[in-house]
Order: sequence, then structure tokens, then C-alpha cells
Amino acid sequence: MSTLCVPSQVPPVAEDCEQLHKAFSGWGTNENLIISILGRRNASQRKLIRHCYAETYGEDLLKALDKELSSDFERVVLVSVLDPPERDAYLANEATKKWTASNQILVEIACTRSPKQMNLAKEAYHARFKKSLEEDVAYHTTGDFRKLLVPLVSTYRYTGDEVDLRLAKSEAKILHQKIAAKEYSCDDVIRILTTRSKAQINATLNQYKNDVGNDVNKDLKADPKDEFLALLRATVKCLVFPEKYFEKVLRLAINKLGTDEGALTRVVVTRAEVDMKTIKELYEKRSSVPLDKAIAKDTHGDYEKMLLTLIGHVQE
Amino acid sequence: MSTLCVPSQVPPVAEDCEQLHKAFSGWGTNENLIISILGRRNASQRKLIRHCYAETYGEDLLKALDKELSSDFERVVLVSVLDPPERDAYLANEATKKWTASNQILVEIACTRSPKQMNLAKEAYHARFKKSLEEDVAYHTTGDFRKLLVPLVSTYRYTGDEVDLRLAKSEAKILHQKIAAKEYSCDDVIRILTTRSKAQINATLNQYKNDVGNDVNKDLKADPKDEFLALLRATVKCLVFPEKYFEKVLRLAINKLGTDEGALTRVVVTRAEVDMKTIKELYEKRSSVPLDKAIAKDTHGDYEKMLLTLIGHVQE
Repeated sequence: MSTLCVPSQVPPVAEDCEQLHKAFSGWGTNENLIISILGRRNASQRKLIRHCYAETYGEDLLKALDKELSSDFERVVLVSVLDPPERDAYLANEATKKWTASNQILVEIACTRSPKQMNLAKEAYHARFKKSLEEDVAYHTTGDFRKLLVPLVSTYRYTGDEVDLRLAKSEAKILHQKIAAKEYSCDDVIRILTTRSKAQINATLNQYKNDVGNDVNKDLKADPKDEFLALLRATVKCLVFPEKYFEKVLRLAINKLGTDEGALTRVVVTRAEVDMKTIKELYEKRSSVPLDKAIAKDTHGDYEKMLLTLIGHVQE
Repeated sequence: MSTLCVPSQVPPVAEDCEQLHKAFSGWGTNENLIISILGRRNASQRKLIRHCYAETYGEDLLKALDKELSSDFERVVLVSVLDPPERDAYLANEATKKWTASNQILVEIACTRSPKQMNLAKEAYHARFKKSLEEDVAYHTTGDFRKLLVPLVSTYRYTGDEVDLRLAKSEAKILHQKIAAKEYSCDDVIRILTTRSKAQINATLNQYKNDVGNDVNKDLKADPKDEFLALLRATVKCLVFPEKYFEKVLRLAINKLGTDEGALTRVVVTRAEVDMKTIKELYEKRSSVPLDKAIAKDTHGDYEKMLLTLIGHVQE
């Protein structure tokens, strides 16, 4: 569930635009005004604002923000203003361009968005980058990583709830055999994780647990330093329990010596309207401190205010 | 261009339905009436007819046809009545279920439909088979064939005309090196053919021809009996010159000892509204006999009539 606090009486779009325009004018920028508007509108409202702003002032809102803001605050606002498919295209493009073996953003996007959302993101990718997401991922990755990532971003998964229990049994067995033999990147492991529906994968992994006695991710931790194994574990987690995956990304981003603002911004912005409520609960359970307290401790200024607003901590 | 002869005055949908219902009633079936309606309506008109028929008579038109018709004529009519995305889903599912190394239908569908049409076909696949096309293809194929076919049916290719000539040069060189070394199924060959836009692949293959002196497909014929090489050649042909690919499928289907009705029906039905006019011209040029004469010689009865109607040979 969403943590976004949209006011019960949302002002007309034209008024939001006028206020934003005012926030950019004169001496200094009124960051509080920007936060109180863009931090408290949902995706479709922001889209309308962006459209209306361009019509009224002849300038893309993104450009106006880019001129006025800076550093982490700028990024969280800009990423918020992007329409979700455009935002995913942008984040995925960034991830392919500076791709490293430890970069899990492509897995995160491919496995936690619905197939229809992924299609929209791919269309946005074409429009913005004049290329396909698939060709960029295939071009910038190699070996086992490519073998996993290309089908992950490509497949249009089935989304129905139907589960074939016989198939789950046979594919749990295949997974167990291959993982026991350390053939982590073999065709079958990749095929099962990249093409089966989430419901089917869940059934297969439950069967795996029944047969083997522990979670598949425990067996995928044989070598904790192996980055391909880490990517496989992220894939499994994003497919079957995305909130838990995001909770951990937040926890690591905050606990780091020096906060990982990239991850913090990304998770807060992309999940605020989706499952941030659950992520917050999981975070507090696991860390014994509420997420907003942890964020407030680790960040400051307008960046802090915008993050807290997005996770529902609104000072009226 | 289309060869379909839609009458200048199309009767109201309700009247078409009434006529079809009449064609099924009483003693015997009026095949000529069925052909004159279903052979002369475009995809959206057929969709309306199917919808209206179900509303009016409480029975799916496909079921009614299935009861009345038989053999090759039945198949050509049924496949015609299916909406294009549904038809592609149906043909692709058939192809995966009885997949053999010589089966090129998946390549044909993946490479000659637009990315948007492929997305619609994938949605139709979910709806009808409660699975994804990708998982079925991955499950029913193996080795090099899987390595080529899965990304081919998965990628949402970029459709713009932009061409990166530097990239075309470097990838033409990669293709040449790999093909010269007979590494036909290596990661790079697969990556280039399955992820680049058609415009980009065309530029790369032109560069290949400039560098090497002949078409890539000549070099992919090193072993004419190798079925993976045949599939690669079909991929190239479907991507850069689909009409020529279809002309050859028709030619082989007709010239065979015993016509290949499956291929003949598939190509005529799926291309009638797309590029059959060009395919007919290419056929006549290559075989020195018009396609309608060749079809008339090789088929008979209602099946012949329906095929000829679809390729624009209409007896008023």
C-alpha cells in the first residue's frame, strides 16, 4: 500500500503549476513549497502538472527544477516527477550504462514491475533512447550475467494465478540437482527463473523447500562473495517477496558508512505509491527503529523532508 | 499491400451473420456463401462478425464452422476467422507443441510481425493458454535452437529508422569473424540478430556485404543440411526481406511432391492483408507462373476457392 499523503482537497492543476512557478521565482527557491506539492501528488496528478506546466510556461518542469535545485534533493524531485514508465526506462538506462556485476537494479525493475508496466517502460525506453532496453542490456553485459539479465528484462510473463503442481515438482527437482552440482547458470535454472509466472515460481520454490528442507536462497549462498549468486538471490527475492527485497536495500543504504543516497532515493520514489507501507513495517520489525527515524538520522535538509513526505511523514 | 477484395459496399454485420447462419442451415452447407463473406472481409470486419454472431446465435462462429466444415477448407476458414493476434498465438502454440529443428514458424512470427503486434499476440497467448509464449518456447526447445528462439520471441525491438553506422561497422566485423570461425551460435551473433532494430541489422548486413563481398546468408550456407544454419538464414530473411521469405515458403509448399497445405494456408491467411501483393509479384518473377495459377493447379474445391479469394482472385 501507498504511503503517499495526497491532500483530501487537491488544488486544480493550474494552481499547482502557478505555485511551482512562484517557488522558482524571485530570490532563492521555495523548497518547502515544491515538496508540499510534488511530494503529495500521485503519478497521474504529477503527469498532469508536468503537462500543464509546459503548456503554461513553455518550459519542461524537469528543466525548471534542474535549474533551481541541486544534489540529492534535485535527484529525488526529478525522479519523482518522471512518469513511472519513463522513470523505469531512465533508471534501467543508467544501470546498463554503468553496469557492474554488483548492480542489481535491472533485476529489481524486471522482477518487481508487472509485465504490463514493463511493456510501458520498454516503450518509454524506445521513445527516449531511440534503442531497445534489450539491446542495451545485451550489449553492456557479458557471460552468465547477460544470460540471466537479457531474458529477465525481455520475457512477458504470464500473470495468472494458475499453478501446475506436477510441473512445480519436476522443476523443483531440476533446481535442486543443478544447484547441488553448482551449475547455477545452466540453461534450466535460467529458464525457470526468467520465464515461469510468479505464481508458478512460488509453487516451485515451496516444493523445493519441502524437498530440501531450506529456502533456495540459502543454497544460493554457497559462496557469499560470488556476485552472480547474489544476483540470483535478488531475482528470487524480487519475484516472490519484493517488499522484503526493498526493505533490505533500504537497510543497507542507511546502515552504510556514508548513506547510499542513490538506493535510498530510488526505493522511496519507486515504491511510495506501491508497497512502501509494508516495506516500512518490515523495516521497523527488522531494525527495531521506524524507517522515518532512520532516514531522519541519516539525511538532512530538503532531501530529508522530501523523503519523509514520500513515506507519509507529513508535517501539516 | 493487401490482396483482399473487400466489396465497395460491405453489408451490415448483422446481415453477414444472418447469411452465415443460413449457410450452415438445412441440408448441406453453402460453402460458396461462406467464402464470399469470410474471404472478403478484413480483420476488423471479421472480428465484428464473430462478436455479433455469438451475440445473435449464442454460439461461437468458430464452433459453428468447426461443425460444418472439414479438412483443409475448414482450417483455412478457421484460421481466417481468428483475429490476427489470436491467430499468431494459436500458430505459435502449435509450433512449440510439435516443435522440430526444421520448424521455422516461430522465427517467421517473431521476425515478421511488428513489436506491437507481437505484444498483442503474447497477450492473446496468455488469455488462451494460461501461460506465456516465452515459457513454452523455452520449455520445448533445447541447445542452440533455444538460445536463438527464446530471445527472438521475447525482445521488444526498437522500430525507429535511426542507424548507427559505427556500430554497424563493428558488428559486421564481429559477425564476419564469428561466422568465419563457424561459431554460429555464439553470444554475439545471437545478440545482434535478436536485439538490434531491423534498420540497424539491415545496415550491419549491408556493411557485411561491402566488407566480405557476399550476402551473410551465403556464408550461413556452409553446411546446407545444418538445421540451425537454416534457422539463422530464415531469421535474417524474415528480418530484412520478409516478402522474399514468404515467396519461398509458398514456392516450396506448392512444388512439393504433395502440396504442404499447412504452409500454404498459413502464408496466404497471415499475409493476405499485409504484403501478399508483393509476394505474388515475387512468386511470378521467380516461378514464371502466376501464384493463382499455381495454387489452382495444386489444390481443388472449396479450399482452392478460399485461397484464391484471399489472394484477390475473385469471381463476381
